[in-house]
Amino acid sequence: MDMVSIIQKKKDGLELTKEEIKGFVNGYVAGDIPDYQASALLMAIYFKGLSKEETFELTDAMRYSGDTIDLSPIEGIKVDKHSTGGVGDKTTLVVAPLAAACGVPIAKMSGRGLGFTGGTVDKMESIPGFRIALEPDEFMSQVNRIGMAVIGQTAHITPADKKLYALRDVTATVDDFGLISSSIMSKKLAAGSDAIVLDVKCGDGAFMENKEDAAKLAKLMVEIGNNAGRRTVAAITEMGQPLGKAVGNSLEVIEAIETLKGRGPEDITELAERLSGIMVYLGGKAATPEEGLEMTKKALADGSGLAKLAEFIEAQGGDPKVIDNYDLFPKHTIEKELVAEESGYVEKIRARQIGLASQHTGAGRATKEDEIDLSAGIRVCRKVGDKVSKGDVLAVFYGNDEGKVSMAMNEAAKAFEIGKIKPEKPELIKEIIGL
Amino acid sequence: MDMVSIIQKKKDGLELTKEEIKGFVNGYVAGDIPDYQASALLMAIYFKGLSKEETFELTDAMRYSGDTIDLSPIEGIKVDKHSTGGVGDKTTLVVAPLAAACGVPIAKMSGRGLGFTGGTVDKMESIPGFRIALEPDEFMSQVNRIGMAVIGQTAHITPADKKLYALRDVTATVDDFGLISSSIMSKKLAAGSDAIVLDVKCGDGAFMENKEDAAKLAKLMVEIGNNAGRRTVAAITEMGQPLGKAVGNSLEVIEAIETLKGRGPEDITELAERLSGIMVYLGGKAATPEEGLEMTKKALADGSGLAKLAEFIEAQGGDPKVIDNYDLFPKHTIEKELVAEESGYVEKIRARQIGLASQHTGAGRATKEDEIDLSAGIRVCRKVGDKVSKGDVLAVFYGNDEGKVSMAMNEAAKAFEIGKIKPEKPELIKEIIGL
Repeated sequence: MDMVSIIQKKKDGLELTKEEIKGFVNGYVAGDIPDYQASALLMAIYFKGLSKEETFELTDAMRYSGDTIDLSPIEGIKVDKHSTGGVGDKTTLVVAPLAAACGVPIAKMSGRGLGFTGGTVDKMESIPGFRIALEPDEFMSQVNRIGMAVIGQTAHITPADKKLYALRDVTATVDDFGLISSSIMSKKLAAGSDAIVLDVKCGDGAFMENKEDAAKLAKLMVEIGNNAGRRTVAAITEMGQPLGKAVGNSLEVIEAIETLKGRGPEDITELAERLSGIMVYLGGKAATPEEGLEMTKKALADGSGLAKLAEFIEAQGGDPKVIDNYDLFPKHTIEKELVAEESGYVEKIRARQIGLASQHTGAGRATKEDEIDLSAGIRVCRKVGDKVSKGDVLAVFYGNDEGKVSMAMNEAAKAFEIGKIKPEKPELIKEIIGL
Repeated sequence: MDMVSIIQKKKDGLELTKEEIKGFVNGYVAGDIPDYQASALLMAIYFKGLSKEETFELTDAMRYSGDTIDLSPIEGIKVDKHSTGGVGDKTTLVVAPLAAACGVPIAKMSGRGLGFTGGTVDKMESIPGFRIALEPDEFMSQVNRIGMAVIGQTAHITPADKKLYALRDVTATVDDFGLISSSIMSKKLAAGSDAIVLDVKCGDGAFMENKEDAAKLAKLMVEIGNNAGRRTVAAITEMGQPLGKAVGNSLEVIEAIETLKGRGPEDITELAERLSGIMVYLGGKAATPEEGLEMTKKALADGSGLAKLAEFIEAQGGDPKVIDNYDLFPKHTIEKELVAEESGYVEKIRARQIGLASQHTGAGRATKEDEIDLSAGIRVCRKVGDKVSKGDVLAVFYGNDEGKVSMAMNEAAKAFEIGKIKPEKPELIKEIIGL
């Protein structure tokens, strides 16, 4: 295993063999290959790229670098759902109960939020009593019993990805398609579901800022998944403005509940229905995605999605009464309103700026070790295309620290752009790849 | 000092500021910047290059990262000479006494050999009693007294270059023009001479294999030197076959003595004369390089160059009797001849292969810690263009280890190519840059 030759080979634009990639990944996890050689290789990969075959091999090597989850004790076709991360993205909390209500077993591993993007685990922990740390047996039997369970990521899943991601983060080598897609897909494949629906966000508040890049990444992930024998579908969806209106942990759970009650914002409702429809189809419960969508709409309308959420919360130790009593969620003591300084139409709500502002209310983390305020966050009152008059409330800021909430509000003010011409509403679902 | 932003900036092809480059170099030497960030930056530099200004700043930052030598106690214009390294390159041992004999003060810092290239320090240590570790005062006063002194590189010169070079070596980031030229020139500038003559080798036995690359590197080094206020001239010279006929430490010293006696091989004689001529001119002892060349030829013909060598050897504790009695050099017990298997003309003598073979006789090091056999090496009996008959001796191999010498001979056999057509003699001095 001559690491200098491997770096040189990639630097020269040559394709690495399966053995070289596995040797690198395993040697790096074992500590035999130092960080400085790994970072040199990552930078050479950024400039010379990875071929499709190399990306498959890198994904495979990372997937098997630690534990992999065997979901075979769960009956049926398990379907996973993954979002590349956005602002106000509580889709999983709506999609999972809807798909489960349609009979698709959901055995999901979720993560925490970092920086301006939130994480499903944090959101669910805003429900009093909710336990994310289930034992494997408990997890499997819950899915078999009620069709749905969510656990946090274990430390032993894809250690190579964790170690490489941490290195990429400090060496400016995060933004490579092969590295991003293999990182995401290695975790998804290790997590054991039979089919995967990817929500690839695109826009200001997403890692991929334009549709072309998002589509390129989505296509690559779909290919990786299918190459590994897992049916994979990706939707490219809008993240120019926050999704829905709530940003922040308990605020987003409440919005998800409202959505399952049929009273949610249009965008989150539409996105959840479409993704669930695809999951129902991939899970073999519908003959077409369209039929899956119809079944999902029915599950939303007849309350079975909401009932599934209640059942799920209760199964994981949470208090299902939150569904009817939002006062049971963690409390904020401070509430501040941002008002429009001029009349016109909302032209832009920069999602990244709102995400950062939400982080600063106390709802998000700057580093993995930070404690968060589950009650804090932002309610966006007007969305892109809405008409506003001077003095109208654009957004409300919640939290428990006067200084933090004020700072967040000042920051978020820059996110809104008011203009004279009514803008076109951004297209929510831009493309679906792999269906 | 945000190192991730600096890496990102270079990765995006932007120019780093003086402060960023100095911050990186000083932070890296201080241990504040980890190897993995340095190697990522080096790889980004390989792909995006350094501008001239960045190369100047990097050189400057490395030059001042440790001690710099103040040669002002030495009178006159001190002229340094540096070779980028080749096989059989004993030029310094001929050039320095010739230039010193013409009145140019030579206060030189030299290095040891590594891999297939030799180093002046090792060669001089084959002279019984020779001391390379002079105290600074001793060094200066010797130059003032006899016009010439040579010391080994101190540990405190350009620590940034040492640390970065070691990192480049293990991360496949050696071969970048900006990094190579700033590495060489930072040491030359820290070493304190007023003018610098560079011998940039080109061909199979050199770091730069073709003339275009050698000229590109030479031009950059000349610009760095001149930008730093040191008059710098570079000669691009042939290293397709070994220089002269001797390869190995004491063998090369003997050949240098023979050259100063007027009996040396044509190529080493011509090269030494030309470089010394330029040094005499840069040192202000001649009005033109041509006049410098004439003065050098005279110093060679009248024996004053040889007398200067004797004086120099004695001043540094060596036995000057070696000049007339080569038996005083370290002894080899084994001598093996390689003979031609066919008749024809020598078409090629691959210098790198001969260098490696010489290393394997015991004359060179694979790692810095290896001990070397100062008596070992190779005498090349025929040069490119020479006619040979089947059975003629092509080269003789010397050493004290039967196995090593045999191995070296087998390896060197591949270096010789005999053909039917008389090849053109390679051009020795291909270009002079900066005159």
